[in-house]
Amino acid sequence: MNSIWGVKDQRITPLDCTIRDGGLVNDHYFSVEFVRAVYEANVAAGVNYMEIGYKNSDRLFSRDANGAWKFCDEKDIRAAVGDNPTPSTKLACMIDAAKSDWKTAVLPKSQSVLSLIRVAFYDYQVDEAIEMIEDAYEKGYEVSANLMAVTVVEEKKLDEILERICKTPAQVVVIVDSFGSLTPFQTEYLTKKYVAYASEAGKEVGVHLHNNMQLAFANTLLAAQHGATRLDCSLGGLGRGAGNCPSELLLSVLNPENYKLRPLFECLEKEFVPLRQKIEWGPFHEYMLTAQSNVHPRAAIAHRKSLETRDKYTLLYDKLAEETKK
Amino acid sequence: MNSIWGVKDQRITPLDCTIRDGGLVNDHYFSVEFVRAVYEANVAAGVNYMEIGYKNSDRLFSRDANGAWKFCDEKDIRAAVGDNPTPSTKLACMIDAAKSDWKTAVLPKSQSVLSLIRVAFYDYQVDEAIEMIEDAYEKGYEVSANLMAVTVVEEKKLDEILERICKTPAQVVVIVDSFGSLTPFQTEYLTKKYVAYASEAGKEVGVHLHNNMQLAFANTLLAAQHGATRLDCSLGGLGRGAGNCPSELLLSVLNPENYKLRPLFECLEKEFVPLRQKIEWGPFHEYMLTAQSNVHPRAAIAHRKSLETRDKYTLLYDKLAEETKK
Repeated sequence: MNSIWGVKDQRITPLDCTIRDGGLVNDHYFSVEFVRAVYEANVAAGVNYMEIGYKNSDRLFSRDANGAWKFCDEKDIRAAVGDNPTPSTKLACMIDAAKSDWKTAVLPKSQSVLSLIRVAFYDYQVDEAIEMIEDAYEKGYEVSANLMAVTVVEEKKLDEILERICKTPAQVVVIVDSFGSLTPFQTEYLTKKYVAYASEAGKEVGVHLHNNMQLAFANTLLAAQHGATRLDCSLGGLGRGAGNCPSELLLSVLNPENYKLRPLFECLEKEFVPLRQKIEWGPFHEYMLTAQSNVHPRAAIAHRKSLETRDKYTLLYDKLAEETKK
Repeated sequence: MNSIWGVKDQRITPLDCTIRDGGLVNDHYFSVEFVRAVYEANVAAGVNYMEIGYKNSDRLFSRDANGAWKFCDEKDIRAAVGDNPTPSTKLACMIDAAKSDWKTAVLPKSQSVLSLIRVAFYDYQVDEAIEMIEDAYEKGYEVSANLMAVTVVEEKKLDEILERICKTPAQVVVIVDSFGSLTPFQTEYLTKKYVAYASEAGKEVGVHLHNNMQLAFANTLLAAQHGATRLDCSLGGLGRGAGNCPSELLLSVLNPENYKLRPLFECLEKEFVPLRQKIEWGPFHEYMLTAQSNVHPRAAIAHRKSLETRDKYTLLYDKLAEETKK
C-alpha cells in the first residue's frame, strides 16, 4: 500500500458489498447481467471478496416482493458467476440473525460456490449469532462476525460481546457503522478496541462504514492505519441510504501491482450511470441529519421517497430534534 | 468543540467561501438575493467569516462575461449585505496575484465593509504576494496568505515560501488543496509543518480543501486535530469542480452553543435545491480521477461539460494515464 497514505499493512483485503448492501436500495432486484458485470469488474480489479447478497428466509420475506439476492439460492449465484473459476475473488454471503433459516439455507461448503459467510446481528442477538458462526464454520466456511449499529451499543455490552465473539471460530470481526454516525475519533477508538480483542484471539478486524457524513472512505483509511485489514467497499458507494465507501476510492490507495482501478471505472460507466437513473443513493442532506442524530436512516429514506417531503430538510431537522431532544 | 471529534481547540474559526469559490462554477453570476440569503444564513448560524468574492481586474476579465462577485466593487457588496451590521460575521474578499489591480481595488479599510483580505498565489508568485499582503495590512485589513496548489509545490520551495510568508504581517497562512489530492497522511504532515512555521511567528493556520476524493470534511477535521484553527467551508460544499468541505458537516461538530445548524439547512432547502437544477458541483467520478493524478480539475470540468464525454470515465482515465504516465 502506498505509504503516502500512512497505511503500511500489506495484508489489507478489500471486500466488495455492492450487490448485498445495494440490494437494500432496490429490494434486491439486480439482473443476472448486472451482478455478473460487478463480479467481472471485481475479478479484473483484483478485489479479494465479493458479497453477493443475503441468505434470508423465504418464510419471512416474500419471493414475490424481493429479488433473488435476498435469498441467494445456489442456482441463482451460479447463474451469475458460474462456478467462480477465479478463486482470487472469493464469494461471500450475509445471513441475518432472526431473519435467516441458516441451518438449512447455508449448504455444506462442498456444495456451494461461496467461501465466506458473514453473520449480521444486533447486540441482543449475540446468542443466536454465536450458533450461526459455529454452524457456518463447521460446514467448512470462513466466517465473519458483523455486530450492527455499533454506535448505539453501550460500551460494557460491547466489551462482553467482543469477548464472547472472540471465543468463536469466526476469523473476522467487523465494525459496522449502520447509521453512518462514526466520527474519525470514534473510528480510531473502536478500531483499537476491536484490534485488541481480535489480535489476541488470532482474528482480523474489518470495517463496514456508511457515508452519511462523507466520512466512509476517510474512516476506512483511518481504521486501516490502526490495524483493520478487512475493508468493505462498494462500486460507486452503492448501498442503503448514503451508501458505503466507494471501491474506486479505496482501491486507488492500494498497491497498484495487485489492484487495478480501470475495470471499476469501466463498470461504473457502463452499469452505474444507467442505474442512477432508476435508483438513488449517496450522502444527501437527509442522511447527514439522521447520522448527526445517531439514528437509523429509515426516517431519511422515507423523507426522500416522498416528493412531498424530499429536500425539505428543516422538516426532518425539526422532527429529529424533537425525537432526540437535541 | 465536541470532544468526541478529538478536536479540543476552542479557537476554531470557520470561514464560509460559498460565493467566492462557488463563483468559479457559474462565472460569479449569483443574484444579490442569493448572496444575501447566504450571508443571512451565515449570520444566523454564527459563522465567523464570509468570503464574498474576488477583487480581480476588469482590465483582464470582462465585466460582460463575469458576474459582480469577480470584482466585488464596494457598492455591489453593500447591495447584498448593507454595512454588515452584524460584526460577528466578518466579510472577506480574495485577491489573486497577477489577476488583481490590488493597489487601487483594495480600498482603505475605513472605506470598506470588508475585514479580511485573502491573498491567493502560486509558488512562483511569492514576491508579488508579499507586496499584496503588506499593502492590505497597511490599509488596515486582517490578511491571509493562501498558497495555492500545495500538492505540486516542491518541499524545499514550500519551506522557503513559508519562511518568507511568516515574516509578513499576514495573520493567517492557509493550506490550499486546489486539486483535492491531499491524503489524510499528507494533510497531517502539511498541517504540522505549517503550524511549526506559523506558531513561531504568532500566526494561525487555515485549510481550504477540495472534495474530489470525499475527503474535504475528514481532512479538515484532521487538520484541526493537528492545530489548524481557520477552517474553510461552503454551503452544500459549493465550489469549483468537486466543491469544498460542506458547512453543514463542519458546523455539526462545533460547539452548539456558538454555532447553529438549522439556518444552514434552511438556506440549503430554499436556495441550493433550485440552484442544483442550474449548475453542477460535487465529487463526481471525473474529479476523483484528476485528483488521483494530482492535476488541476480543468480536464474533469471540460469532460463533464460536454454531453459527448460526460460520464465516459475510461476516456478520461486513459487520457490522464497517458499524460501522467501512471
